[in-house]
Amino acid sequence: MAKSKKTFRPKARAPRGFRDRYGADLAAEREMLAAISAVYERYGFDPLETSAFEYTDALGKFLPDVDRPNAGVFSVQDDDEQWMSLRYDLTAPLARYVAEHYDALPKPFRRYAMGPVWRNEKPGPGRFRQFTQIDADTVGAPAPHADVECVVMLAEAIEAAGLGPDRFVIRINDRNALTGLLDVVGVAEEDAPKKLAILRALDKLDRLGAEGVRLLLGEGRKDESGDYTKGAKLDAASIDKVMAFTEATADTNAATCDALSGIVGGSAAGARGVETLAAMAAQFRALGLEESRAKIDLSVVRGLEYYTGPVFEAELAFETLDEEGRPVRFGSVASGGRYDGLVERFKGVEVPAVGVSVGVSRLRAALELSAKDGASASGPVVILALEADRMSEYQAMAAELRAAGVRAEVYLGGSGMRAQMKYADKRAAPIAIIQGEDERSKGEVTVKDLVLGSRLSKEIQDNAEWREGQPAQVSVPRDRLVDAVNEALLRSR
Amino acid sequence: MAKSKKTFRPKARAPRGFRDRYGADLAAEREMLAAISAVYERYGFDPLETSAFEYTDALGKFLPDVDRPNAGVFSVQDDDEQWMSLRYDLTAPLARYVAEHYDALPKPFRRYAMGPVWRNEKPGPGRFRQFTQIDADTVGAPAPHADVECVVMLAEAIEAAGLGPDRFVIRINDRNALTGLLDVVGVAEEDAPKKLAILRALDKLDRLGAEGVRLLLGEGRKDESGDYTKGAKLDAASIDKVMAFTEATADTNAATCDALSGIVGGSAAGARGVETLAAMAAQFRALGLEESRAKIDLSVVRGLEYYTGPVFEAELAFETLDEEGRPVRFGSVASGGRYDGLVERFKGVEVPAVGVSVGVSRLRAALELSAKDGASASGPVVILALEADRMSEYQAMAAELRAAGVRAEVYLGGSGMRAQMKYADKRAAPIAIIQGEDERSKGEVTVKDLVLGSRLSKEIQDNAEWREGQPAQVSVPRDRLVDAVNEALLRSR
Repeated sequence: MAKSKKTFRPKARAPRGFRDRYGADLAAEREMLAAISAVYERYGFDPLETSAFEYTDALGKFLPDVDRPNAGVFSVQDDDEQWMSLRYDLTAPLARYVAEHYDALPKPFRRYAMGPVWRNEKPGPGRFRQFTQIDADTVGAPAPHADVECVVMLAEAIEAAGLGPDRFVIRINDRNALTGLLDVVGVAEEDAPKKLAILRALDKLDRLGAEGVRLLLGEGRKDESGDYTKGAKLDAASIDKVMAFTEATADTNAATCDALSGIVGGSAAGARGVETLAAMAAQFRALGLEESRAKIDLSVVRGLEYYTGPVFEAELAFETLDEEGRPVRFGSVASGGRYDGLVERFKGVEVPAVGVSVGVSRLRAALELSAKDGASASGPVVILALEADRMSEYQAMAAELRAAGVRAEVYLGGSGMRAQMKYADKRAAPIAIIQGEDERSKGEVTVKDLVLGSRLSKEIQDNAEWREGQPAQVSVPRDRLVDAVNEALLRSR
Repeated sequence: MAKSKKTFRPKARAPRGFRDRYGADLAAEREMLAAISAVYERYGFDPLETSAFEYTDALGKFLPDVDRPNAGVFSVQDDDEQWMSLRYDLTAPLARYVAEHYDALPKPFRRYAMGPVWRNEKPGPGRFRQFTQIDADTVGAPAPHADVECVVMLAEAIEAAGLGPDRFVIRINDRNALTGLLDVVGVAEEDAPKKLAILRALDKLDRLGAEGVRLLLGEGRKDESGDYTKGAKLDAASIDKVMAFTEATADTNAATCDALSGIVGGSAAGARGVETLAAMAAQFRALGLEESRAKIDLSVVRGLEYYTGPVFEAELAFETLDEEGRPVRFGSVASGGRYDGLVERFKGVEVPAVGVSVGVSRLRAALELSAKDGASASGPVVILALEADRMSEYQAMAAELRAAGVRAEVYLGGSGMRAQMKYADKRAAPIAIIQGEDERSKGEVTVKDLVLGSRLSKEIQDNAEWREGQPAQVSVPRDRLVDAVNEALLRSR
């Protein structure tokens, strides 16, 4: 004791921005991942698992700053002086893998991947430094067939995860439509600041409305606080074109393509975008994916530096409320698109690729919002251990229940009956099995329905009445244990 | 092009000591993990997932050396100066979690966990710096019931993973038996060097035989190269006792307990060890776990600093051969034991705990050694895309096959028929579906059995005969596609 008082005692705590997951929540997430994987596999995608580390130079985007090797990513320097970083997504490792094994791979190369990714960012509420992604990508297939497949498969995957077909919509755009818009308003390819100013203005449509965006496209805009944002300095005709673009998303995909063609059809890139979107829409129709679920929406702007063709994102089709009951934008649960520059960094050649990534915790949250009823008791059946020399008999009961597919365990803690019942409660056990001396002498077991019991104890005020009835527990012959448990489980569901 | 020549091109390679996994191998590992998890869950264990990082001080064993923060583990320093390390096993995070949430947890606390762990060690052949573990632990339950459960559950888990009950044996010992042996030969509790010398000598029985071990227990031993190892300096009577201990493992657990009792029964720790082992053996019998599968074996010496009671390891019960066909020791595929010091580092109180850890890649390797026949074609059915404007029809075929539970994909690469057949081959596709203009005009599809085809092409010498027969492909009406594929899949299995 004297010795242990002097010992250094570390404080037990998870690192900042990381979290633990336990029990039903985690089990539900795993089921979701299994359901999505099964869809990807049915579509012919094979699993790929790369390690957590990549060489930092292979990750590209985040080259190591000698003084701040951990900016954005977590990095360590290996014995041989090389920097390694934990992957920040599943696409960068895919790019490395494809470049490394390019000649040996079947082309197109179809793989799915799931697992944790890490971001060395400031943690915040609901913002963690490790989270799970599940991706599927096709490398080496040109638009639009692989892109169409990606969208159709995503719809199926989200449904398999448990979100009904009327509960979400996949919104689709093509990067070339935006390029076409920049072309027709006369922005030069190299004029990055002007391009950025226009795209930023478009991105603010939700918040500022059409008038605010018009100002940002023109001379500039002063906000309520008096801050002034310089505008993109477009002329009036160009501003009209950009605003027409924002209004071109129509009720049907065909009407949207027509309107888009009228605005950007004069640009080669724009025409390409219209053609791709029209072809995709036609295939969605042919494959039975309704327009309400795969909708061309010109307001979708994703990863400007990254995507090179069709882009898409899955959003909820129902209203979500914040804690105060106000409508709140939930954001996308999955997204993806075409990025033909993937492998170029390594190989110097362009390799067409398209993929989709599901945000696992976001989709889980969406499922919980969408779920109607709460979860029932999810723990195992707990067999009380009342007589120390009867452990083998208790374990035999557990084995019988397991063989019948019922989760079951014997209490192993060595405390008395009261503590054992409390334990069953903490474990969310649906049922406790009791066999004390009394029951044993009669060759019986008592099956105590904890779900029904807790419901009844809320309803029944009179304690005496409750004790008399004990409707939530029943004694049965020992050889009827499994049947009685199954009956009680059925009842409590 | 000129521009891209000047660009820095990182070399695409996985970091040293890390590896990629793809396709059937990875799918088989996942199936194995799912099978083991299912057993753990049936036994009432709930999943826990902690993050990859722990604070380095919480990991304990490997305190960070300021100059070598990465010795043994991978460590990074956070913005707030705290050191974090990637977990090196799944038990240290469990200890932290239990200590952090001690009061709120049900006790005993039963959790299972699976996932990657990292070791910053020199990589070697078959030795990776990231690998997968799957553990189950019961915290807060005294011996021997939780220990018995652990062994019984492990046997079930290994069987569920696919290793037959006659293909492995779980060998069991108790740390107290060894402590008892040290007691009866008069080694003082504090005399660490002498204890270590004796245990090291015991550990060399396999290699040096009884005579060599005798020398190491006494004055010392000179090996063939002339190197001299100083001995433990035991007297002759003590050496006899230690040697009797090495010979005490008998054919039956009862006989082993008797022999052990005769040697170490005079020591309090030794008597405790005998009692625990005898109680475990009795319970294995009562629970129907045969002695051939749960065998007390006094040569089991694991993690001396770590375990405090029963220890066990699962080994293969068949001979394994190296590449030259010589018998080779495969080692254990799973191991575990009781470690009552787990949470003490944080809380200052002893909390009893017992757990088991399956070495995922070792068990996978064992399964492959044990498997009788090779894997069959595991890829998806590949539908060739011969006419560019018929993609929707090809995708409809794929959708029909998927709906019938068959993995299927349309070739999306844009190359000709020859390349498409090569692709199907690389994908390990069991079947290719072909509908060119000919087939289409007749309302048919061709189902080409690639497994049968490759077998026949090995058997048939005469190319003309082969081409005439084409027994491996059959044309069927379009609406018989799914049936014909299922028939071919059945045939090739």
